Amino acid sequence: MRIATVTTPHGTAAAVQADAGWRALPAPDLSALLADGDAWEPGDLLADAVPTLPLPRPGKVICCGLNYGDHIAEMGRDLPTHPTLFAKHADTLLADGQDIRLPAGLQIDWEAELAVVVGRELRHADEDQARAAIAGYTVANDISVRDWQRRTPQWFQGKAWDATTPLGPVVVTPDEVDPEAGLEVICRVNGVEHQRGSTKTLVFSSAALLAYVSTFTVLRPGDIVLTGTPGGVGMGMEPPVYLADGDVVETEIPGIGALTNTVRLA
Amino acid sequence: MRIATVTTPHGTAAAVQADAGWRALPAPDLSALLADGDAWEPGDLLADAVPTLPLPRPGKVICCGLNYGDHIAEMGRDLPTHPTLFAKHADTLLADGQDIRLPAGLQIDWEAELAVVVGRELRHADEDQARAAIAGYTVANDISVRDWQRRTPQWFQGKAWDATTPLGPVVVTPDEVDPEAGLEVICRVNGVEHQRGSTKTLVFSSAALLAYVSTFTVLRPGDIVLTGTPGGVGMGMEPPVYLADGDVVETEIPGIGALTNTVRLA
Repeated sequence: MRIATVTTPHGTAAAVQADAGWRALPAPDLSALLADGDAWEPGDLLADAVPTLPLPRPGKVICCGLNYGDHIAEMGRDLPTHPTLFAKHADTLLADGQDIRLPAGLQIDWEAELAVVVGRELRHADEDQARAAIAGYTVANDISVRDWQRRTPQWFQGKAWDATTPLGPVVVTPDEVDPEAGLEVICRVNGVEHQRGSTKTLVFSSAALLAYVSTFTVLRPGDIVLTGTPGGVGMGMEPPVYLADGDVVETEIPGIGALTNTVRLA
Repeated sequence: MRIATVTTPHGTAAAVQADAGWRALPAPDLSALLADGDAWEPGDLLADAVPTLPLPRPGKVICCGLNYGDHIAEMGRDLPTHPTLFAKHADTLLADGQDIRLPAGLQIDWEAELAVVVGRELRHADEDQARAAIAGYTVANDISVRDWQRRTPQWFQGKAWDATTPLGPVVVTPDEVDPEAGLEVICRVNGVEHQRGSTKTLVFSSAALLAYVSTFTVLRPGDIVLTGTPGGVGMGMEPPVYLADGDVVETEIPGIGALTNTVRLA
């Protein structure tokens, strides 16, 4: 099943994809649908429905760094025994098709990622409980401002720029995709592929990450965990390459979908 | 002016302290009062009003590490050119008088801090604009799980345990206290003073932190910025000392108030 928040001429709606298009679900967006928690039946077909930011109001967006062996090597680090975690705010999120607007002069880099969407409340969960609580998977790009990320020991200020983390376009339920069997995570800039990694090489699986996080904090329906990026980021190139005004960033996970966002510097 | 969220026999209320007790303000808590943004007049005296967590639903809780010269020295670091920032979730917050509940076997440490409460939306603000947008100041203790904080390069997982960051008991408006002139930030454990630092020695002032954060993300009414902790944390002692079951942590800033929280390990 493929679910989304769609724009329509009458506002946004949660929706499920059907052969003929998008059918309405009983909520204004997926954040509200998942928070509500009730079972639902697909409603009427929605005219002129276009997926937008699937989860506009996650309470938590928790990110894992250093989770693919090749990216860990290019950053010059050893394989981790614990996941490296940091937090973003909902304000960082951006829909497919929207511009990544940032000031000129920053070292802006790409990080294609699989994002896990939480479907049920989790606290002190084991991996099986965590796996059963996954609502679905979507695509993200943890666009990073490297010079700010490296200003201090903590990455947050390079990761928390408003409206710079593309997410979506749809959420695919776990019966249709299995990251542990392997999903390709791809990033292209102006049509040139820079990243391609398989989620089967993740050091910490989606379920392992959710279980680990639930040791110290509650995860609620609609919360998002980003699972890390494979090798091929711009700062790992020699010399490093950063995003420029007008660059088109495509982030794709075949089986889920693709995001296209243009960099606009001012 | 001293404002708070108080519990009453009829639920919580935003309130302002008067000679005779607490007078009602037109909101169920300070988060709602500040978000509403309207001017208000104090209402009736509230019977049996007791301050509780002043801000139950901040959208953002952003923390600054390494901001007092003596604490920077005890952590073995150089004076910073940029503030070291990380994020917490609202779920970490805890009211005065509530127990700090954690599993046994962790390295639990104290970090008394001045907390700044945002009163007006800020984005791309300079220091004067940021200073004018401060709603007030309160007391916090950024209780930290040091072994988890040091598991990876990012501190988040040592800082984000639910219901472990005491905050309150009241918010004091900037006409009554001036951190740049100097407020004493004190932590006592079982009556023994371990931390005492003055906010006049902060490397980055409250206004400087708010302005800096507003470069990359919007701050909204009710958001909180923790300004860092002075020297004297447990992990800086030789040998390191951590909190044990039954320990009573008192966090005080004279002129604002004091928090008393007991550690309960299970």
